[in-house]
Amino acid sequence: MFKIVISQSNLKCIIDAISHLTTDAKISISEDGLKIQAVDAANVAMCFLHAKASAFDHFEAAPGEIALDLQKLQSLASGKEPVSMTLEEETHKLHIAVGRAKYTMSLLDPSSIKAGPRIPQLDLPCSITMTGSDLQEAIKAAGKVSDHVVFEQTDEEFIFSAKGDIDSFKMPFQLTELIGIRHGISRALFSLDYIQDIAKVASGSREVILETGIDYPARIAFNPVMDISVTYLMAPRIESEN
Amino acid sequence: MFKIVISQSNLKCIIDAISHLTTDAKISISEDGLKIQAVDAANVAMCFLHAKASAFDHFEAAPGEIALDLQKLQSLASGKEPVSMTLEEETHKLHIAVGRAKYTMSLLDPSSIKAGPRIPQLDLPCSITMTGSDLQEAIKAAGKVSDHVVFEQTDEEFIFSAKGDIDSFKMPFQLTELIGIRHGISRALFSLDYIQDIAKVASGSREVILETGIDYPARIAFNPVMDISVTYLMAPRIESEN
Amino acid sequence: MFKIVISQSNLKCIIDAISHLTTDAKISISEDGLKIQAVDAANVAMCFLHAKASAFDHFEAAPGEIALDLQKLQSLASGKEPVSMTLEEETHKLHIAVGRAKYTMSLLDPSSIKAGPRIPQLDLPCSITMTGSDLQEAIKAAGKVSDHVVFEQTDEEFIFSAKGDIDSFKMPFQLTELIGIRHGISRALFSLDYIQDIAKVASGSREVILETGIDYPARIAFNPVMDISVTYLMAPRIESEN
Repeated sequence: MFKIVISQSNLKCIIDAISHLTTDAKISISEDGLKIQAVDAANVAMCFLHAKASAFDHFEAAPGEIALDLQKLQSLASGKEPVSMTLEEETHKLHIAVGRAKYTMSLLDPSSIKAGPRIPQLDLPCSITMTGSDLQEAIKAAGKVSDHVVFEQTDEEFIFSAKGDIDSFKMPFQLTELIGIRHGISRALFSLDYIQDIAKVASGSREVILETGIDYPARIAFNPVMDISVTYLMAPRIESEN
Repeated sequence: MFKIVISQSNLKCIIDAISHLTTDAKISISEDGLKIQAVDAANVAMCFLHAKASAFDHFEAAPGEIALDLQKLQSLASGKEPVSMTLEEETHKLHIAVGRAKYTMSLLDPSSIKAGPRIPQLDLPCSITMTGSDLQEAIKAAGKVSDHVVFEQTDEEFIFSAKGDIDSFKMPFQLTELIGIRHGISRALFSLDYIQDIAKVASGSREVILETGIDYPARIAFNPVMDISVTYLMAPRIESEN
Repeated sequence: MFKIVISQSNLKCIIDAISHLTTDAKISISEDGLKIQAVDAANVAMCFLHAKASAFDHFEAAPGEIALDLQKLQSLASGKEPVSMTLEEETHKLHIAVGRAKYTMSLLDPSSIKAGPRIPQLDLPCSITMTGSDLQEAIKAAGKVSDHVVFEQTDEEFIFSAKGDIDSFKMPFQLTELIGIRHGISRALFSLDYIQDIAKVASGSREVILETGIDYPARIAFNPVMDISVTYLMAPRIESEN
């Protein structure tokens, strides 16, 4: 059984968090809510999303797993009114109602969805907490000179930096300005392709936790809205010597 | 003689109603106002527009016929101020003034415009009246799953529906919710190409009359603004059995 | 030495005035402010811009000359906060700070920039002063029928006109409606490519001085904001006889 009602804004939030990585998503359903784990085609970025039952206007579900085309869902479910979804188990179809409009959408076979890689247990030495808007500002600025950005934590600062062919960029944050610091030394280079999308999803969050190490993946965790939590894990790029 | 002044909004309304079907339009002028009859290149949809003299700020005209390029007129007449148009009979030119700007536009030869087909006398058994915004909402939703839409009237409901390759859509309206019902049974399939444009023109109207039959054309009539009436006739498509 | 702070709006104003003519600009620095002289690739239009020291929030400069890529500067310096720029003489780099973001941008070699042609001493017989919004309205309207516009001054009027293949346009201004008239007779044809961009830059100015002659260049002078003055000189096109 799967009968839910969700607000447009919360549904959009879930879809936006995942759809820049993959179109087809596998959703694990439990009595407590939904979990989605997604990875992009190149295995560079992973997303772990948890939407608690309380993130829904109505949530009534037996444990199970479904897979669907998020882009299609976004298109059908758009509008202004809350979206109600009911699973028809026998036919593997999802009934979607938005206001007066009623859609029937075919589900995908969960086994056809690319499995995420095994999640590495990572002990990331450094951590800072900043606002999503500060993160997005830094990422946007880095994008003006390069398509990569360096995350670097020292004893005093957390620094975003980027190097173009002839121009360069730097945005330092004093650790004393930040909240939730775990002190340490880190430095790693990331592709802006992924972090730009992630920063956009995070831009409205008041607290974004950014965990880093030396040439380690970065972990970025936040709640885009209450009762929905998102954690991204993003592989670093090798920094060339030039 | 042909000397008129028209508000930007009423002129836009006339041009919008016609220009999605054809660029070059023949206009019949009488003392009572203007009439335009237009048909698209594929003979799928026809429009009959009547703008009463009272739809103009000033209307002074002798009976006659002119033809012009609506797209050109739209471009020249755009702005914020009322548009004044005066026909110079000898040279076949239209003088257009908008605020301080004065344009001279060459008219077309009315005999060069494709004649509309003879208008079939249609006895359409069913009729409902709904708001333009409800019509547009239904048409937009149908467009999410298909490029066709079915109009269907039963004893109890008027239903918009559409079928995509794997998804489907349905939007029912109880007849008791509607105004101006003529009871009957109808069902026909229409191409969204045409009805999307028509629904957009109708979207601001409080009352849109939708007349249908079984595999018959649909007739859609409304007043986009006071003193301008528009009637579209749209041919059905053959519904394939699948 | 070159240390300046400038508001986003004044910086944008300087860049907008120049960048439709050329991307790479040579800037002459004095204690009084900046001067930029630019010419388009085809030598049709020239711009002389003077930004007084008072146009800057902070201005501290020794006489000199630098050259830079305006498009790059526009991209790096965008945002909401004032832009601070400091020249590092030894490395020929410009340090740009906008809020928390710090960029380093390489300068160009001033000798690599195309020199403007010698400025002709022009005695233009006619002059009118009009608002930038009137100028832009006339230029936009001319663009609906042609890609050229005629500027014409008679004893009574200043007239913008344009001729398309079958349509034509005219916008007369009575001299008595205008301010700052120098009487005379003028008529010349200009390419809208250039004047459209210039009119856009001028659109917010309350007083635009337009000097013309018979088949002479036009001179268009205005202050897009206080303490920044811009003068364009634009070559006429030969008016064909048809």
